[in-house]
Amino acid sequence: MSSDAARTPLLPTEKIDTMAQDFNLNSRTSSSRKRRLRRSRSAPRGDCMYNDDVKIDEPPPHPSKIPMFSDLNPNLRRVIMFLALYLTIGTLCFYLVRDQISGHKTSGVVDALYFCIVTMTTVGYGDLVPNSSASRLLACAFVFSGMVLVGHLLSRAADYLVEKQEALLVRAFHLRQSFGPTDILKELHTNKLRYKCYATCLVLVVLFIVGTIFLVMVEKMPVISAFYCVCSTVTTLGYGDKSFNSEAGRLFAVFWILTSSICLAQFFLYVAELNTENKQRALVKWVLTRRITNNDLEAADLDEDGVVGAAEFIVYKLKEMGKIDEKDISGIMDEFEQLDYDESGTLTTSDIVLAQTTSQIQR
Amino acid sequence: MSSDAARTPLLPTEKIDTMAQDFNLNSRTSSSRKRRLRRSRSAPRGDCMYNDDVKIDEPPPHPSKIPMFSDLNPNLRRVIMFLALYLTIGTLCFYLVRDQISGHKTSGVVDALYFCIVTMTTVGYGDLVPNSSASRLLACAFVFSGMVLVGHLLSRAADYLVEKQEALLVRAFHLRQSFGPTDILKELHTNKLRYKCYATCLVLVVLFIVGTIFLVMVEKMPVISAFYCVCSTVTTLGYGDKSFNSEAGRLFAVFWILTSSICLAQFFLYVAELNTENKQRALVKWVLTRRITNNDLEAADLDEDGVVGAAEFIVYKLKEMGKIDEKDISGIMDEFEQLDYDESGTLTTSDIVLAQTTSQIQR
Repeated sequence: MSSDAARTPLLPTEKIDTMAQDFNLNSRTSSSRKRRLRRSRSAPRGDCMYNDDVKIDEPPPHPSKIPMFSDLNPNLRRVIMFLALYLTIGTLCFYLVRDQISGHKTSGVVDALYFCIVTMTTVGYGDLVPNSSASRLLACAFVFSGMVLVGHLLSRAADYLVEKQEALLVRAFHLRQSFGPTDILKELHTNKLRYKCYATCLVLVVLFIVGTIFLVMVEKMPVISAFYCVCSTVTTLGYGDKSFNSEAGRLFAVFWILTSSICLAQFFLYVAELNTENKQRALVKWVLTRRITNNDLEAADLDEDGVVGAAEFIVYKLKEMGKIDEKDISGIMDEFEQLDYDESGTLTTSDIVLAQTTSQIQR
Repeated sequence: MSSDAARTPLLPTEKIDTMAQDFNLNSRTSSSRKRRLRRSRSAPRGDCMYNDDVKIDEPPPHPSKIPMFSDLNPNLRRVIMFLALYLTIGTLCFYLVRDQISGHKTSGVVDALYFCIVTMTTVGYGDLVPNSSASRLLACAFVFSGMVLVGHLLSRAADYLVEKQEALLVRAFHLRQSFGPTDILKELHTNKLRYKCYATCLVLVVLFIVGTIFLVMVEKMPVISAFYCVCSTVTTLGYGDKSFNSEAGRLFAVFWILTSSICLAQFFLYVAELNTENKQRALVKWVLTRRITNNDLEAADLDEDGVVGAAEFIVYKLKEMGKIDEKDISGIMDEFEQLDYDESGTLTTSDIVLAQTTSQIQR
């Protein structure tokens, strides 16, 4: 059916008018029939811990309860443990080879820790450089493993820390309106990513100011040079012409370089995510507002019974939004067909009973 | 119903045996009834270009046809154009302020281009450094905009280039078996990400070897120092104690630094994606193999008609896999209810007709 035909109404106009009038009498908004359709039933609450060997008989835990998705704390703890381990080993190693590292020195342990952080975050000032094959290969090993660790830090810890400030930000942004806790939650839920961007940006600005002030006060740098040093450090550029030379400065740099470079990377990630989310929202809006034609009804009618149920409509639209694809559906359909013992095309308690008995007989 | 009750069969055992026997007679595998359920209907092919102002009457374009998701070529072209623009402006600016940049110099334009690349990729050797406020602020501006550009390069161009090598790799990996084009496509489809990792890793190894050989032959570095310089460059660490000092070396570095640093970043991104995909597959396998209980049937029964249809089962399982959430569903349900004029809980052609007539009457 060519696309123009889709535009001309299917029924002769007079016939339509009479049907339209009946509908206008009992106007849709005051329809008293209880709409039985949308119940936001979520999957049954699960209590069992999911682990790799699949537990068949346990009631299924809710996705958000599965350890992989549970509260970030354990993840944050694990990442911080890895970070502490990495820095301890790194400081120890670079302290042991401190004679094979040349450049401006202050105190052994602080320099080793400072060099470890400068290598891990790939800032690489060059104020301290390995000058023997052994120390060079050691630095190579630490820069690659450091990048992996920073990757984990980015995906775990940052998210967790930002969540703490979001609620404050929402309240700050809506001081004038009367914003109760539920409004904050609702606002947070819909624009979660945007508040993460704001929160990270705020932390970044504070780190920039703190860094510049510190370099001006402690390292005695002019303001522009201090700001330039902050920029070249936060972006992990690290030319090395301006860097932290005093012992106190290097101790400050250990914490400040780690937090600021990760914060900037996290900010870029959130901006990219926000960009993708906006495109997704535009697509969803387009999918949900475009006109439905008979082609759509036909394509959405999974069980070919001539009508499109709510679930079929949901599956069809989700596919169109690109949220799911054929691969997701066919895996689930295979399971459905296995469970559908009487091949009625629907699942009932009897299917479940027969599924249980056959598996008992087979055992 | 506590979890132990779920384990005891719902029907008394003798009753089950008789029912089980009937089923065993016409064993499921030889069932002749044509299974009308699974047709992999996709959304109707669309032809119109999607743009921001939503076209209501046009037939809906297929998601993969919407410009945002169409072939990567336009994206790749746009990113390369931005890159060329960035490097031209950067080289011009750093050439104009070359007197305010100190360090080891070769030729004006090559040094400016080399400095621009070293800044954009945040390698920051420090063999060339800005020594005035103006050139320093210029470098700050270029490092931040360079990071944004590298971000775009990572998300667009890299994916596109790797896709070219994947098919070769699949053939190389399966030389012994007889692997036709369809097998390659199928293999590629299921393990796409893994082959991307392999392809990027291969390109990375080649870049490492080429870089090391070049530094040994042209920059006359010992092998370990050359390898150390390659590692500290590819990871954008850039201490600067070892870098490219000759004009030819710097010209080579312009291309080599850009490709190798982006390739390493892309490799890390693919490994992270692969990690997430494996976790997702484990969850999907768990969701599809766990035992279905009456709780599930009840929760999946969206329209509360006492049976669970295929589409309802799909929606229920997708939610459990975490692929969709309540927010996705409620948006679609709102549209469904608007279209469901006779409030029958299903959509038919008459709903579409009435939807058209009321919108015509309103206009």
